[in-house]
Amino acid sequence: VALHDVDAAGILFFGHLFRHAHDAYEAFMADIGFPLDRLIREGAGKLPLVHAEADYALPMRHGEEVEARLQVESLGRTSFTLSYRFLDAAGRECASASTVHVYLAGDPSGLTAHPLPKVLRTLLQNWTAVSAED
Amino acid sequence: VALHDVDAAGILFFGHLFRHAHDAYEAFMADIGFPLDRLIREGAGKLPLVHAEADYALPMRHGEEVEARLQVESLGRTSFTLSYRFLDAAGRECASASTVHVYLAGDPSGLTAHPLPKVLRTLLQNWTAVSAED
Amino acid sequence: VALHDVDAAGILFFGHLFRHAHDAYEAFMADIGFPLDRLIREGAGKLPLVHAEADYALPMRHGEEVEARLQVESLGRTSFTLSYRFLDAAGRECASASTVHVYLAGDPSGLTAHPLPKVLRTLLQNWTAVSAED
Amino acid sequence: VALHDVDAAGILFFGHLFRHAHDAYEAFMADIGFPLDRLIREGAGKLPLVHAEADYALPMRHGEEVEARLQVESLGRTSFTLSYRFLDAAGRECASASTVHVYLAGDPSGLTAHPLPKVLRTLLQNWTAVSAED
Repeated sequence: VALHDVDAAGILFFGHLFRHAHDAYEAFMADIGFPLDRLIREGAGKLPLVHAEADYALPMRHGEEVEARLQVESLGRTSFTLSYRFLDAAGRECASASTVHVYLAGDPSGLTAHPLPKVLRTLLQNWTAVSAED
Repeated sequence: VALHDVDAAGILFFGHLFRHAHDAYEAFMADIGFPLDRLIREGAGKLPLVHAEADYALPMRHGEEVEARLQVESLGRTSFTLSYRFLDAAGRECASASTVHVYLAGDPSGLTAHPLPKVLRTLLQNWTAVSAED
Repeated sequence: VALHDVDAAGILFFGHLFRHAHDAYEAFMADIGFPLDRLIREGAGKLPLVHAEADYALPMRHGEEVEARLQVESLGRTSFTLSYRFLDAAGRECASASTVHVYLAGDPSGLTAHPLPKVLRTLLQNWTAVSAED
Repeated sequence: VALHDVDAAGILFFGHLFRHAHDAYEAFMADIGFPLDRLIREGAGKLPLVHAEADYALPMRHGEEVEARLQVESLGRTSFTLSYRFLDAAGRECASASTVHVYLAGDPSGLTAHPLPKVLRTLLQNWTAVSAED
């Protein structure tokens, strides 16, 4: 929790949690071999968020170490849902969040929801399985 | 929608919507006579968010004018819920959001949920009524 | 000065001043008829910053009204410099800043500094004159 | 360089460089045993920035790995200057920055510049020496 993350009350500004969730998402996508920057540059499709939500249980203070854990919550035909848990050094859940991403493709002037690319579906599925075993 | 609001895909980064929602909330609280900066400085209590969520319907592009409309959604004993609609110049809803705020007071080391201060409850109630009439 | 602008010390996080400076810059460019979003979408050229600096004189606190005043400081062949003054409600200068923008054009793989487009040069020049009269 | 770091032009929004510089500064202060969050919580003094500047040499794109290197540039009686170099994976300098921090102490209503605390001076001096050897 950096100085620019907290507000005058000394705790994480709620909106910044989504920045950290997205950092975890970007790191995850790069890890599984589907980096977002390549997707955006190649222009084949987009994965915009259509929903985001978060619950805040404990204040996250300046200087605290908070770990973000990401999980593939569900995998639809054209979308997927990720969930995030934010844990402090003692392992307590400070916050949780989830984001829903939909795959848009087609001609640039009229992007519509498309089935997730096979490679992405497989990558996410593998990861769901691994996660489910834990 | 400012340049720093949008990402490489040219549309509003989803997390920044919450910054704009919070700006609307701060402006609203100042308007009704309960400015957040005074609350924080006086240290009598806090109004942290315990929940936030948003739905994204249309991409908000760099340079677009987007209007935020705030409404008091519900008023509980120790908390209240605000909802936000984000409209483009044509009046179409690009996104919606809601935030739940809980009133914490007591000794600083152990803040707990308290009934909303009477003055705040009255201010919010008035405003709900006005809004309901529209 | 919004809640998300300030840090745990209750004053504007220095880096956010540049966001506000850029908002003033975007509003200015739109006002003079050269909106940045059009420039970026049309892809004819870019105006990246090559230098930015700021001096902080007075703390800007949560809830304070701070006005940004922009001036065209100098106009070069391929670049221009803007300066910004940030004034509190009492008219005192809380901070000042300046940004240097260079015009890049050419083939996308190798953008190089180019003379400012004539229309932009004229618009900026007009505005420098007006400003000098004040 | 995360998705929320870049703008519609696909490159790092200049203002976000200062956020990353400050992250390097916070990590450095924690490393040398003078964490900022403790300083702010204990309320003994403050280290606000009075100046910040940056030069941008190469665009930093979404997905790029950029390393921040911090150096104690100079050490005054009441202030110190840090410099930062931002290097891409190939070791090329994409940007550089510097920040000037002044030590304020005294009664809260009228903080004035004070000599740096001895412990901080020693810590910074050690580090300057080490750095000078490199």
